[in-house]
Amino acid sequence: MFQIFQYKQLFHFTEQVFLKIGCSANDATIATKVLLNADIRGIDSHGVARLVGYVRLWQAKRINANPAISIIHQTPSTATVDGDKGLGLVVAPYAMQLAINKAKECGTGWVAVQNSNHFGIAGYHAMMALEHDMIGIAMTNASALVAPTFSIEKMLGTNPIAVAIPANKQPAFVADFATTTAANGKLEILQRKNLDTPLGWVQDKDGYPSTDAHILKNDGALLPLGSDKEHGSHKGYALGSIVDIFSAVLSGASYGPWAPPFPAYIAMPQNMPGKGLGHFFGAMRIDAFRSATDFKQHMDNWIERFRNAKPANGYEKVLIPGDPEREMQEERMNNGIPVIEAVVKDLHNLAQTLDIALL
Amino acid sequence: MFQIFQYKQLFHFTEQVFLKIGCSANDATIATKVLLNADIRGIDSHGVARLVGYVRLWQAKRINANPAISIIHQTPSTATVDGDKGLGLVVAPYAMQLAINKAKECGTGWVAVQNSNHFGIAGYHAMMALEHDMIGIAMTNASALVAPTFSIEKMLGTNPIAVAIPANKQPAFVADFATTTAANGKLEILQRKNLDTPLGWVQDKDGYPSTDAHILKNDGALLPLGSDKEHGSHKGYALGSIVDIFSAVLSGASYGPWAPPFPAYIAMPQNMPGKGLGHFFGAMRIDAFRSATDFKQHMDNWIERFRNAKPANGYEKVLIPGDPEREMQEERMNNGIPVIEAVVKDLHNLAQTLDIALL
Repeated sequence: MFQIFQYKQLFHFTEQVFLKIGCSANDATIATKVLLNADIRGIDSHGVARLVGYVRLWQAKRINANPAISIIHQTPSTATVDGDKGLGLVVAPYAMQLAINKAKECGTGWVAVQNSNHFGIAGYHAMMALEHDMIGIAMTNASALVAPTFSIEKMLGTNPIAVAIPANKQPAFVADFATTTAANGKLEILQRKNLDTPLGWVQDKDGYPSTDAHILKNDGALLPLGSDKEHGSHKGYALGSIVDIFSAVLSGASYGPWAPPFPAYIAMPQNMPGKGLGHFFGAMRIDAFRSATDFKQHMDNWIERFRNAKPANGYEKVLIPGDPEREMQEERMNNGIPVIEAVVKDLHNLAQTLDIALL
Repeated sequence: MFQIFQYKQLFHFTEQVFLKIGCSANDATIATKVLLNADIRGIDSHGVARLVGYVRLWQAKRINANPAISIIHQTPSTATVDGDKGLGLVVAPYAMQLAINKAKECGTGWVAVQNSNHFGIAGYHAMMALEHDMIGIAMTNASALVAPTFSIEKMLGTNPIAVAIPANKQPAFVADFATTTAANGKLEILQRKNLDTPLGWVQDKDGYPSTDAHILKNDGALLPLGSDKEHGSHKGYALGSIVDIFSAVLSGASYGPWAPPFPAYIAMPQNMPGKGLGHFFGAMRIDAFRSATDFKQHMDNWIERFRNAKPANGYEKVLIPGDPEREMQEERMNNGIPVIEAVVKDLHNLAQTLDIALL
């Protein structure tokens, strides 16, 4: 079913791929670091499994391997960045760093990005803020797969939000989640195994509940967090909309159903109202609000109190956002990263096409 | 079951109550405006129904009717405000105005508040930004009623988030929602009618699914948005936690299970780690990112496109966040506000206690 690779192996291979499509040495390294952070943290759908997809976008000339990323508008605490069709894996860290720099100057920094592409996992970018004693925020719009409450039309992406908050002795609080009931990656796992979804993840072409993991190919849709109106799907729909508007309307990117698709074989939408995919980043210096030392001690207290909340029957403990990914990271940095055969095959084909050494 | 009052009647009465407990004329007016905005918008749980609750908090000396609200820390884009135990209804608009002023100066403004009390509906404060062509954000922590995923302990409030985004010809996008599957107000309605809740709103004392609307009195808990792990409750738990941390840990207020309770008959928590309730506000000038005219035209396009998304079988149209509340506002400003008998009785008792004219 899968092969185990060491992080260094995957890193070297992925970096070669990015170099081969024309990225600068710097960009190839950062893109690799961002992409593989997903594999390390156990979000397999967003890591090396997508490498072929990025290359196909480059082949289709939808990705510019040598972007001239530029700031097209700014104030002391904000900026709008044009990604020049670059890899989101490169554009996003640039923009997040800009947010951090602005936060150093005036307390907080907020950067909207247009004309970008898929940026890997949101959590990576948000976590860049942690070492500066800042809270980091990252979000992005994405290809439309999600139907708003009461609708059968796919209008929003899974539009993730990540928030990273530093602590002192405790590891950081890192939330990183799609604004849908289930991320598309979870659906893909069920598709590969030919298993059904739980009720509440997807609906069919008429808007009725479905458990068919393949329903998106038959005009079905993913559901916003909350699943149905009675369980608050209008809140998940609102959250996904906020991510879409902050990332794409505020930046001048292409929003809602016009978001550019990740698979290169899907035609670009007609009459796009903006440029490429959009992201939104925030950095807030803790000591712009209170002493960072005090805050981080209280975060330790917060985390310890929640970790020790009484568990429900059958559960050992309450988790803090970021716990599962951190455990996975330790495991995989020590014991290697399992990559499923289908992806290994993709990578071998890629090696051949681009004439680089086999993984 | 209920009596109809005109907005002006309720306004005059409520203002008298706030004056009588010692608020300044200015504060009484603003507190009334904020409180009744809930009734106008149809969020009956947060309006005049809570007036008695505020008075009881004042009687218990947990609310200071004449607070010396102060800025205890600031940078160009941020501030931390001490509400001096004032009415949240007064402290919150002060803090939101400060965020707006900072946004005028440097693009965005972010204000964390400690030592406050319940602030009415989050949407009111977020919407203050709209007339300045800004995006407004408001959130608050609240008394612990919600169990984290895998837990049976009430650790978080319903911790609402509101985001208001201006448009041009279309009315503004206004999302305002509790980070739970169902707001506590919805539970209270079922309690009064002695009806069951749908599955997924609450759990019993052992963490098992329940439909008992009174279960919170028997060690049950409200569930985070998503209801259970399989349907993403860990995301609702993360969202509620982010609101708690931004509002209360960042500001120096009392967080998590230590948040001060709204009902005055519930004792204050022991060993509170901060001062009072906390809020967090943000204001982002649209033209700190792109031309406000362009943005608002694209928001019109966004709203029109979503409003015209294909409806599911049995539904007439797709709603935009804020639509139901705006319709309610028109209806109630024209035809009056229905107040249930139990609340009318409370108000009559209040009139007697405070020696003011009957409603």
